Amino acid sequence: MREFKKLTPYRRAFELMLDDLEEIKEAEKVPLSKVYGRVLAEDVVSPIDSPPFNRAAVDGYAVMAEDTFQAREYSPVKLDVIDEITTGMKSNAEVSPGKAVKLMTGSKMPEGANAVVMQEHVKQKEDKIYILRPVAPGQNVAFAGEDVRKGETVLRKGQVLRPQEVALLKSLGFREIRVRRKPRVGIIITGDELIDEFDEKALKAGKILESSSALLWGLVKQYFGEPVFYGVLPDDEKIISEAIKTARMENDLVLVTGGSAFGDKDLAHHSIRLLFHGTTIKPGRPIGYGERVFVISGYPAAVFAQFHLFVKYALAKLAGARFKPITVTAELTDKVSSQLGRYEFIRVWYEAGKVRPIKKRGSGLISALVKSNGYIIIPENSEGYLKGDRVEVTLY
Amino acid sequence: MREFKKLTPYRRAFELMLDDLEEIKEAEKVPLSKVYGRVLAEDVVSPIDSPPFNRAAVDGYAVMAEDTFQAREYSPVKLDVIDEITTGMKSNAEVSPGKAVKLMTGSKMPEGANAVVMQEHVKQKEDKIYILRPVAPGQNVAFAGEDVRKGETVLRKGQVLRPQEVALLKSLGFREIRVRRKPRVGIIITGDELIDEFDEKALKAGKILESSSALLWGLVKQYFGEPVFYGVLPDDEKIISEAIKTARMENDLVLVTGGSAFGDKDLAHHSIRLLFHGTTIKPGRPIGYGERVFVISGYPAAVFAQFHLFVKYALAKLAGARFKPITVTAELTDKVSSQLGRYEFIRVWYEAGKVRPIKKRGSGLISALVKSNGYIIIPENSEGYLKGDRVEVTLY
Repeated sequence: MREFKKLTPYRRAFELMLDDLEEIKEAEKVPLSKVYGRVLAEDVVSPIDSPPFNRAAVDGYAVMAEDTFQAREYSPVKLDVIDEITTGMKSNAEVSPGKAVKLMTGSKMPEGANAVVMQEHVKQKEDKIYILRPVAPGQNVAFAGEDVRKGETVLRKGQVLRPQEVALLKSLGFREIRVRRKPRVGIIITGDELIDEFDEKALKAGKILESSSALLWGLVKQYFGEPVFYGVLPDDEKIISEAIKTARMENDLVLVTGGSAFGDKDLAHHSIRLLFHGTTIKPGRPIGYGERVFVISGYPAAVFAQFHLFVKYALAKLAGARFKPITVTAELTDKVSSQLGRYEFIRVWYEAGKVRPIKKRGSGLISALVKSNGYIIIPENSEGYLKGDRVEVTLY
Repeated sequence: MREFKKLTPYRRAFELMLDDLEEIKEAEKVPLSKVYGRVLAEDVVSPIDSPPFNRAAVDGYAVMAEDTFQAREYSPVKLDVIDEITTGMKSNAEVSPGKAVKLMTGSKMPEGANAVVMQEHVKQKEDKIYILRPVAPGQNVAFAGEDVRKGETVLRKGQVLRPQEVALLKSLGFREIRVRRKPRVGIIITGDELIDEFDEKALKAGKILESSSALLWGLVKQYFGEPVFYGVLPDDEKIISEAIKTARMENDLVLVTGGSAFGDKDLAHHSIRLLFHGTTIKPGRPIGYGERVFVISGYPAAVFAQFHLFVKYALAKLAGARFKPITVTAELTDKVSSQLGRYEFIRVWYEAGKVRPIKKRGSGLISALVKSNGYIIIPENSEGYLKGDRVEVTLY
């Protein structure tokens, strides 16, 4: 395998790439029902108090707390029940000394009342109640604005909207919200050796069934992007550079795989000024980046590592997403080793505090990707970890 | 708050619910481009060896290993280069003693050769090479079937298809695959107090903006299902039971929320024979289940807890998905306490080995959901955990 004259250290390559990309500024208003997974384009300020009024936090009786201070099990305080409200209704009755209003969790507090006595601490006989325990002013009341205050910033620009954020927006009265346009990502697969569909004769003759497009398509969708597939192209410099040109115009980012990145026929990058080409990562060492184009090694395991070490962060930046992969520290079940000078991406299976490295490590082996749910890194200055070491796993 | 006569312990309620549900048997053939996130309906057996032939694992020269045994830096072995192949081509030349074929990573091994000498360990002069190091038979060769063997079961029924599984299927020649039909989930929101759209006057009068539908819609989509929304219904027993009847016919599962589940107006369950109603979970205690219908408390935080403790597992079972949420053990930054007898669902923020409980715990507070990315459980027999305790977090 030919060595690159100079491998760019991973961290340096990562910074060059990230600094070169610009966040997409365009935003669009999207109805809440279609906004799951999208990225907020601006801070969201609440137009209302939520709850919009003081409400009962328990089922019971709205009272003036002062009336209950003397209440004891052996010496209950008697009050008149002057009204009863169900949730979503309100009472026009006003609570005054000696009076109570029956209500339910969520009911709007009636005028005059400043506390709620829980149903369990009361005995009711017809329209009288006997209160067995005192309540303090404010007790069992959910105050207006307790959840969210009017004018409060409830969500920040860059938030990725999960079901709970969408529910919050709905509860504040929003019906649509401004989110960033998704980054469009052109995918170009190159290589004379590749075929796109099963063809036994071609396979026997030495061709390879291309699968990196399926991998990239799914990964781009998973990480904020909208993939656009430009097909499998032959190793023809003119065809490839034309395709890159078109894809750059039509997309925010372009991913070009070359199955033979180390060989003589790696043509993809000729038309692009790369900021780096060849890094310390393994697998996926030949990765290059420049002018919104990633030139990546086409072997599936290399594609996968290159995506997780570079492309997912590029997409998060373009999308303007606040994004940090979930990491956990866990105990290694087997030793793993690496060559000094390599930033090695090791696929693992994480479960219940243990992390098991996936042994098959050839860069063409998709079956090993399938057995993994995360990765660990052996950095350039380390030769690996021992069985029992605690290591940091990044989960997909 | 009225107590249920008898609360079913969470584990028991969970089993009653899960035992009652049946996996959906229907499957459909779906093209690979639309299969991400779906659940495999049957085991997948590879129709081919992958790679389909022995191929070079490095760039270099295919040789008979026996020819190289004497090769040393100071005493190279000289061979004739009789052909050169690029990836995706093959050579008809046959390697015999004294001969070599130049090739690239991924090239099909020519007849007669049983090893590859790396380019770095060779000096080429015109059509001769000088080999500086010996190779063993099989060295630097990726053998046919090394990744996947013909007839091997590569994916199991119930697998949730991620980008890497789709890529594996594509690399084996599949263009479509049988996946389970998604569970259809009817969502019915009930409550006189609820309004569906912002209306300042109604809010002032005590109404509440409904948001649980948005929460459930997103959660159902996130966990294998296809949501169908039946609207916000008034507290009218006839209307609700008609809607449940229709939704049961049209869906695999029905979720009915009642904002007033503890109150007198909780009507949703009257038409359904529930296997349990009222459990030890908090929040969400009033949850009931029977006949493919969940009757759930309508407060957003309760909806959320009930979904994660019950409904997501119901959906995984219906979908036939092998599903296990990701859990991590982490250090608690603050003490958390709970009442004995409650299976308490505490929302937390997990990051870098630390888990911070979200303090706001009222069941109506959506803002607390937004600040969380997982949960911990305080089981019935525990009063809580101390600051610094190591606890198990389930990540959303």
